[in-house]
Amino acid sequence: MILAEFSITPIGAGESLSEYVAECLRIVRESGLPHELTAMGTIVEGEWDEVMAVIKACHMAVRAKCRRVSTLIKIDDREAPPGRIRAKVESVLKKLEQA
Amino acid sequence: MILAEFSITPIGAGESLSEYVAECLRIVRESGLPHELTAMGTIVEGEWDEVMAVIKACHMAVRAKCRRVSTLIKIDDREAPPGRIRAKVESVLKKLEQA
Amino acid sequence: MILAEFSITPIGAGESLSEYVAECLRIVRESGLPHELTAMGTIVEGEWDEVMAVIKACHMAVRAKCRRVSTLIKIDDREAPPGRIRAKVESVLKKLEQA
Amino acid sequence: MILAEFSITPIGAGESLSEYVAECLRIVRESGLPHELTAMGTIVEGEWDEVMAVIKACHMAVRAKCRRVSTLIKIDDREAPPGRIRAKVESVLKKLEQA
Repeated sequence: MILAEFSITPIGAGESLSEYVAECLRIVRESGLPHELTAMGTIVEGEWDEVMAVIKACHMAVRAKCRRVSTLIKIDDREAPPGRIRAKVESVLKKLEQA
Repeated sequence: MILAEFSITPIGAGESLSEYVAECLRIVRESGLPHELTAMGTIVEGEWDEVMAVIKACHMAVRAKCRRVSTLIKIDDREAPPGRIRAKVESVLKKLEQA
Repeated sequence: MILAEFSITPIGAGESLSEYVAECLRIVRESGLPHELTAMGTIVEGEWDEVMAVIKACHMAVRAKCRRVSTLIKIDDREAPPGRIRAKVESVLKKLEQA
Repeated sequence: MILAEFSITPIGAGESLSEYVAECLRIVRESGLPHELTAMGTIVEGEWDEVMAVIKACHMAVRAKCRRVSTLIKIDDREAPPGRIRAKVESVLKKLEQA
């Protein structure tokens, strides 16, 4: 299981990107994978192949509408129980309270 | 005003990073800047210089404890009202509902 | 055809990473895809699926030796003739000479 | 001394970015810092403050021409002799030959 944050930037397609992000979020939701939308990207949890298939589908959906697309993917791969989108944040907050 | 997401990775310092993230979050909180902790990074909003000063302080705090540190910073700079950490997410969700 | 730059960081595995990078470079070379090693990552050119298969193989080779791995992938996808690893740099240098 | 790779992406400003990259490369050259232009970014070596001043100048030069700019910065901070832009690549190639 990996955590992956990705963001897809259409280049030369106007200043507002929320329409493209909305289309990607729809694809992520349909995958059924645990996910979270943030102001800077979308975080998805799953096996490498299923996460990468979702990111590819999002990238290609944007690419179909724009002549150039820049996509950034950051992966955190660690043997850990599922539910890390929440667990990682809670682990940090707990450490902060203990200090 | 910019939005910046950053993550700081100590290399060669063990597998668990939450202690380091907690220390960085404490520094971000003390800055008073709007921020959000996610599973993959910390998002901060502010002027370029104040945001970069916070990220430098976080980086140096981790670097003081580890011999090698990898830091990733992603910046979104756009003329827009403050409060973008929430506003960007809400704008996407709104687009999705309308579709 | 896409260009992808990737870097794979083992966490908790010591300060020097060149051994891991060397193993990844060997995998990239065996793929036969156009590539370039830089001080900050490896750039590969090819179709989405073949590039991603190489990056996955590199990630998994490092993950087999370390309990936690952070991987960053940046993709530039644009309809353009192959050979972009060189062509993009040359295009910039040409612009600079003309100025 | 740090190594930083950065890339600056104007959003909503057309598909070709080489003009913007050329302007940034001119700023980097004028800084006198060791640097390398790659197909996916620019690598700069120096102290944190001088490297960040160069990246800020590049970002602001592009931002002055575009209403939205996305900038990515990846930093590798390790106590090591200067000249790491070459030394890191050579260290990997040496490891590969020995294997």
